[in-house]
This record gives sequence, C-alpha cells and structure tokens, in this order.
Amino acid sequence: MVNKFFAILVFVGVPLVIVGALINWSDMLMFFLSCASIIGLSGYIGRATESLAIVSGPRVGGLLNATFGNAVELIISIFTLKAGMVGIVLASLTGSVLGNLLLVLGLSFFAGGIKFKRQRFSVHAARYNSGLLIFAVIVAFVIPEVFSITMSSQKTLSLSIGIAIVLIALYLAGLFFKLVTHRGIFASTDQPEVTTEVPEWTKKKSILILLLATVVVAFVSEQLVHTFEMLGTKFGWTELFIGVIIVAIVGNAAEHVSAITMAVKNKMDVSVEIAVGSTLQVAMFVAPVLVLVSLFMPKSMSLVFTLPELVAMITAALLVINLSNDGESNWFEGLTLFAAYLIMGIGFYLL
Amino acid sequence: MVNKFFAILVFVGVPLVIVGALINWSDMLMFFLSCASIIGLSGYIGRATESLAIVSGPRVGGLLNATFGNAVELIISIFTLKAGMVGIVLASLTGSVLGNLLLVLGLSFFAGGIKFKRQRFSVHAARYNSGLLIFAVIVAFVIPEVFSITMSSQKTLSLSIGIAIVLIALYLAGLFFKLVTHRGIFASTDQPEVTTEVPEWTKKKSILILLLATVVVAFVSEQLVHTFEMLGTKFGWTELFIGVIIVAIVGNAAEHVSAITMAVKNKMDVSVEIAVGSTLQVAMFVAPVLVLVSLFMPKSMSLVFTLPELVAMITAALLVINLSNDGESNWFEGLTLFAAYLIMGIGFYLL
Amino acid sequence: MVNKFFAILVFVGVPLVIVGALINWSDMLMFFLSCASIIGLSGYIGRATESLAIVSGPRVGGLLNATFGNAVELIISIFTLKAGMVGIVLASLTGSVLGNLLLVLGLSFFAGGIKFKRQRFSVHAARYNSGLLIFAVIVAFVIPEVFSITMSSQKTLSLSIGIAIVLIALYLAGLFFKLVTHRGIFASTDQPEVTTEVPEWTKKKSILILLLATVVVAFVSEQLVHTFEMLGTKFGWTELFIGVIIVAIVGNAAEHVSAITMAVKNKMDVSVEIAVGSTLQVAMFVAPVLVLVSLFMPKSMSLVFTLPELVAMITAALLVINLSNDGESNWFEGLTLFAAYLIMGIGFYLL
Repeated sequence: MVNKFFAILVFVGVPLVIVGALINWSDMLMFFLSCASIIGLSGYIGRATESLAIVSGPRVGGLLNATFGNAVELIISIFTLKAGMVGIVLASLTGSVLGNLLLVLGLSFFAGGIKFKRQRFSVHAARYNSGLLIFAVIVAFVIPEVFSITMSSQKTLSLSIGIAIVLIALYLAGLFFKLVTHRGIFASTDQPEVTTEVPEWTKKKSILILLLATVVVAFVSEQLVHTFEMLGTKFGWTELFIGVIIVAIVGNAAEHVSAITMAVKNKMDVSVEIAVGSTLQVAMFVAPVLVLVSLFMPKSMSLVFTLPELVAMITAALLVINLSNDGESNWFEGLTLFAAYLIMGIGFYLL
Repeated sequence: MVNKFFAILVFVGVPLVIVGALINWSDMLMFFLSCASIIGLSGYIGRATESLAIVSGPRVGGLLNATFGNAVELIISIFTLKAGMVGIVLASLTGSVLGNLLLVLGLSFFAGGIKFKRQRFSVHAARYNSGLLIFAVIVAFVIPEVFSITMSSQKTLSLSIGIAIVLIALYLAGLFFKLVTHRGIFASTDQPEVTTEVPEWTKKKSILILLLATVVVAFVSEQLVHTFEMLGTKFGWTELFIGVIIVAIVGNAAEHVSAITMAVKNKMDVSVEIAVGSTLQVAMFVAPVLVLVSLFMPKSMSLVFTLPELVAMITAALLVINLSNDGESNWFEGLTLFAAYLIMGIGFYLL
Repeated sequence: MVNKFFAILVFVGVPLVIVGALINWSDMLMFFLSCASIIGLSGYIGRATESLAIVSGPRVGGLLNATFGNAVELIISIFTLKAGMVGIVLASLTGSVLGNLLLVLGLSFFAGGIKFKRQRFSVHAARYNSGLLIFAVIVAFVIPEVFSITMSSQKTLSLSIGIAIVLIALYLAGLFFKLVTHRGIFASTDQPEVTTEVPEWTKKKSILILLLATVVVAFVSEQLVHTFEMLGTKFGWTELFIGVIIVAIVGNAAEHVSAITMAVKNKMDVSVEIAVGSTLQVAMFVAPVLVLVSLFMPKSMSLVFTLPELVAMITAALLVINLSNDGESNWFEGLTLFAAYLIMGIGFYLL
C-alpha cells in the first residue's frame, strides 16, 4: 500500500515536473510537485537498499542506504551552491544532522518501542558512532566556528579546507576499520539471523533502480532549488528554516521510511546505522566534499555555521550519544529525541 | 534529636513570623525567622514523605519527596514573580538545580561513602535521569539562550512558551513511562527489601502533615520574599547570589535532610531519586509552569538565564551525568561534586 | 638504540648549551640546542620512572612518570612567568593538556592498536579520570572564563585563587582516594603480572637520575625561554602557537616516549595513566600552583584562557572521555584522537 503511494508520487509527479519545467508553471506548484516526486523516489531508493541489505547484512545495508540517501542531498546541495546560496547549503547540512539524529532516530525508537518493550542494538557500533559524532560535530565543526572569530575570511577558508581533508581521510579510515580490520566486532545483536527473508528485488535490479532514481532526483532537485526564493518572500520563511526543516525533511525522506520500517521489524541495528550512520556521512563526507567543491563555484563555502545551527547540532549529538550508548532503546527515549526536534523546529521557525 | 530541633523551629518560629508580620519587625529579624521556620517545616515535609516512601517504595517515595520539596519552591517563586522580581526567580531555579545536583547529591555520596566503601544504585534510573538532564538543561535551556540573541523579546517569549509546553508534556510522559509502562526496569538495587521497616506516621497522618506544612510554608515564604531587597542593600549581595545560594539552600532544605539520611542508611536509590529527580522536576515542571504562570503576572518571564547561570547548570549536569552513569558512588565522587559547588558559589558571590 | 640517541643528545647538547649561554650564541642555535637537550633529558627521566614503575606497580609508576614529566613543565613555566610572559604560560598549559590527551594518548592507542586488535585498561581508572577531566577542564576552567566577562580583573584574580586552592585540595584528596582508601579498585587489568621483569636501574639510581635530570632541565629551560621572542619575530609564529605546540611537544617529550613504549608492550594501564594522569596533574596541580606562584611575580596570572584555548581543551576532554570510558582501545580510536590534534594544530597555526 505504501509502495503504491510512492509509485503514484513518482509516475505522476516526475512527468508533471518535467512538463512544468518546460512551460514554466508557478513556483508554488513546482515546489509541491518536486517535493512529492523526491519523496516518491526516496521510497524506491529505500526499497532497493533494503533488498541489498538482506543480501549483504545490516552494516553494509545501512551504509548503502545512508550513501544513496545522502546522494540525494549532495546533489541538491551542489545545485544550491551553483546558485550561490551558501547559507542554505549549511542550513540543509544542519537540518540533515538534526533530522537524522532527532527525527529519524526518534521516530524509529518510538515506533519500535511501541511494539517492543526494550530494543537492543550493538553497543560497539553505538560507541563507534558516539566517538565520531563528538569528533565531527563537536571538534571539527566547533573549532572553525570559534577560531574564525578573530581570523580573516581567507584564513578561515584555509582552516576549513584543512579540516575537510582530515574529515574525509578519517571517514575513509573508519570504513576500513568497520569493514576490514574490525569487522567481527560490529556483528549484529538482532534476533538470530533467520535469513529466510527473501529480498524484494534481485541485486542487479536493486542497483539499477538505485542509480536511475538518483539521476531523476538530481533533475527534480534542480527544479526544487529554483522555488526557494519564492518560499522566502511568500511565507516569510527564512533561509534557515527552509534549509534546516524543509530541505532536510524532503532530502532525508528515504532514510525516514527505511529506518522506521526496520525499527518496527525490531532490526534496530539497521535503524541506528541508517540514522546515525547517515549523520556521520553528512558530517564527515558530504559537508567536507561540499567545502572542496565550493572552491570551483562562484562563492566558496567555509565550514562556519551560524551559532544557532552549531548549538543545535552539538546539543542533539550530546543527547543522542547519551541515549544510545547503552545499546538499548524504548519509546520514551524516542519521544525525548522527538521533543528535542520540536523545540529546535520552533526555534528555527521563530528565528 | 534532629526531630526535636525541627519541632522547636516550627512551633517557635512560625508564631513569631506571624507576630512579626503584624507589628512590622525589622527585615533582618524577619529574614532569619522565616528561614528558620521554612527549614523546620521542611523537616516535617521530609519525615512525612519518608513515611509514605516506606509504604509506596523508593521510586514513588522519591517522587513524593521531590514534589513536596519543590512545592515549597514553586510557592516562593510565585510570590517572587508577583513582586516582579523575574531575575530572582530564574536565579533560584538555577540555585535549585545546582543545589540538588552538586550539594545534595555531593553530600549524600560523601556521607554515604564515608560509611560504605562503594554504594550502588539503579543503572537504569541513572541513565533515565542522564537523558532527561541533557534534554532539559542542555537542549531546552540552551536553545532559547542562543536563539534569543538575535530575536525580539516577543519572539523569545513565544519560544519560551513553546518549550515550556514541550517540557511539561515530556515530564508527564516520563512519569507514565517510569510508573506504568516500564515500572519493572526501575526496580530497586538496594539491599533485599526486608520491609520490616515501620513508617513513623500512618499514610493519612503523613498526607495531612504534608498539606498543612505546605500551606504554612506558603505564608512564611511571602514574608521571606519581602526581605530580599534589604539583603541586597545591607550586605551588598547581588540578586544572583541571593537567588542561587540563599533561596536555593532554604528552599531545598527538605531534600537535603532526606537525601543525606537515606544515603547514610545505604538507600542510594532514594537519595539519587530525591536529588536528581528533584532537579528534573525543577527543570521540567517548576520552571515551565512558572513561565506559563508569569503570563498572568505584571512581568512575564522568558526561559533565558544569565550566561553564568546557564553555564553553571550545563557543567554541573555534565559532571553529575559522568559520575552517576555507572550506578556507583564513593566519597571522592561526593567530594568532587561538592568542590564544583564551592567553585560556583565563589563565582556567584564575586559576580 | 633509542637510549644511545638520548645519551648523545644529553652529553653533547647540555655542554653546548652551557658554552652557548656563556659566549652568547645566536637565539636560533640556542633554541635547537635546548630543545634537543630537553628531549634527551626527558628520555632519562622516562627510563628512570619506568624502572621505578616495575618496582612499585603501574599506578604509582604512572604517577611518578607524570610528576617528573610535569616537573619539567613547571620549571619552564616558572621561568616564563618570571619573564612576564603570562600568555605563553597559559598557552603551554593548554598545549600540555592537548598534547597529552590527543597526541600522547592518540599515538599510544594507535601504536598499540596496530599490534593488538583490542587493548584493555581499567574501567575504574578510566571513570575516575573522566570525572576529574570534567571537573578540571569543564568546571574549573570554564567558570572563571564565563564569570570574568562582567568582572573586574581584581575579582577575576580572587576567583582564580579560590579555584586554584579547591583544585589542589581535590587533587590531593584524589591521590588519597586512589592510593589509600580505594587502592584495590584500581587494580591493573593488564596481563597476569608475571613480574619477572627486571628494572633497568636500581631504585636508588633511578631516583638519583630523576633528580639530577630535573635540575639540568631547569637550567636548560631558562635558556629556551629567552629564545621565544626571536621565534615570534623570525617565523611569524604567535605566542599561542609557540606555547600550544612547540613548548608542549618539547615539555612533554618524556610522557610521549614512555606512554608509547608501554602501549606497544600492551601495558595500556600505564599508558593511560601517563597520558590522562599527566593531563589531570597539569590541570589540577601545575596550573593552580602557577596561579599561586604568579602572585609573587611581576605579573599575576588569572585562570582565564583565550576562547580558542578553552574550547580546544573542552572538546579534547569530551572526545577522550567518550573514547576511553569503555576501558578499551584500538587503532582507529588512536587515529581519531590524532586527527583532532591535527585540526587544532592547523587552527592554532593559522590563528
């Protein structure tokens, strides 16, 4: 049923976006059509990843999901950078971090916790994630913010480039650690893998759909970005609110759908990997890649967020680390994360 | 013996406060009389709660203690709000958080740790408390502080109201979680409940004394608030020092007495519940209720603390979370908490 | 082989420093000669401590190492204070904290982790360290920074003196806790002490060498301090970079050598004790002693770091606490710490 809904969104939405782009429909209409299409496409990306995950295990599956989920975001962000809207890119990175950590993880904990009293996931994976969350959000994002106060903007950019390279290098080293040298430690704690589960699609079909959906998302995203200016003037929404809330929800739809589905099936290892893994990928790969890409764009982007953005990410990271470090979750922890998202949402709306 | 002392404070102190209020004694005298009476009344509140706790178990007992302890504070604060002294209310909320987290918990750990080498308490309760401490102090208090920098005061108030509602809702959901859906998880780790303990008072008598003492406290508190102005001019104490240190120590006397008594009896679950539970109640219930109440008062109160207040609360929360997350305590951890209180006390005195 | 290298540094370097001081060699030459001599002397201090550690166990051994390692720093700092360069003293304290927490511990985790898949150390020691790291860096260093914003410099100094006394008192109480009342808890988790290990030097010889090396370091340090001004003008290095990176690396050479050696031998308890224990000693003993000593110096020193220094220390502490609290390490955790050091190094260089 959900699948049918996504199918309609894609097979009705995408053609309409194409038509609309050609004959110049109103921004308002185009905004809703592109959002709907992207959400529908995210559904396909989610299902393809799920099929792959059954074949390749929860960790690689989660990684694939995070990667293709973030591919959508990376594409939207590059188009936004091309349009010179650096502020929206930083805001959407923030929104992606907040959305994954608080909304996706919160709803997963909550939905799973309604059905199961207590859900477990790998403590080792949780600790690995905590360490990198602190590294990325609290070290790598805070240092340029504080140091840039008394720096020239040229030096701030140099610092950002240096940090970007360190982040990407450590992210790759982390993959090597998780998938090669310490693979066994990250074994799943989910119920004894019955592995009688049959993937919906074959491996080949899944990869094909992933690639195709990603390309279409890229096209639709470009249409979406063009409507942002209108949103600002029409609704009085700030760049910050558009980036942090709207772009983040649309851009992370795939993660939302997959993570919650997995949580309800009591596969918390996959859920956590999607939500937190996706956050880490945004912070340690997407963000630094965008810094480097921006050097070839009209306006280069330093890794300096606004103070509200940075503080929201830091507090979200501390909350998630504290709630997940014991490798257990329940509905109240999910509600706590969601409540934090709500508070920040109100804050960004009023800002 | 201690009980006799409290009896004298109440049965001599309260009548004198009444007389003094009628024939206008000096502020200095009234300050000492009201403080003494409140401390004595807190002793009665403490004993009544203890009796109830024996009947209803450590968790409900701790909750009752925290609630009636904070009732005193809520009453003092409403009278202070009525007098328009918003700054003192925020300061006394800060003081209550710091006093409970650092002084009450610190002295409990220390006093218990002198007698027992290592004391244990529920790890699950500790983690629940940690999560909400981060949520309340680090998310819900920090966001309005940072976001309000560039906001109009009207929007800051709107944000505060939104956050207040979220805080109260999550606090109530937390009670539902602890007392209904996940009751078993919070089972006590104290020595195998011999339950041969006989409560001092019957359930009926305890509740009667609780109600009566709370009403009298309300009256005395009003007298106390009137003396604050004098303290400022006479001793050169700032609003901040009066609120953070004086009001907090007087207003939390009940928690102090009960928590330390319980720690020496090696009932650390009750001690921690009183100290940290009381903090959470202040942060997630008393503070937001005061924000909402202030809307009907001469001067409305936003949830924006001064920077020293906020930073003191954040650092105190981080310290307590780190020391208590393992479900164990010893005298040195108690001393560390007390040392932190001392440092902040010096700071607020000099400010 | 390494030992021979240190011997050459000392027996060639120290005489040259003496000659150079008498006949006024260039600052540049004197800078390199004194650095080399100090590194060589640190090697001797390290070996003497190691011999003592075999006799007295990992905890006392680590403490001795930290103490004599920090003796070097204390001496350099007193000479720097005498020269009135308060900024460099605070910077070198920062550098010592960052160097020990990120560089020494990071390289230990990494070097040990290359050889062993997972290394273990005492969880109790890790928790004890975490608590004090938060107390020292996050409470005791942050409070004067934030409170001093609206304080007169006289009051800031009073606050610093108060905090210094509390820090020293708690540090001593901590030693009493670790070495007397709770000695058993900190038992080593290293491989079943075979204790067939033979110390390189006797106890007497070790102590003699420690004392002698410390005295010589004091002399050489005075020569080193005189060259700092030249470094600033010649290389355009700021006080901050000299203090945080150069002085810290030279001044902590002893800890570096010992900690990594121990990690490769899978004696992680000693490694962690050297790195984190040394940090705590700097923060809770060296820094407050310097505040008190500065009262008799031309320019008194408040415990107020620059914002970049403070933020770097806070984030480093949070990262280390998170990575070490489980009592396990691996190469990737080491790399993460090193990456954080790299980011901060770039930051301080550009500042």
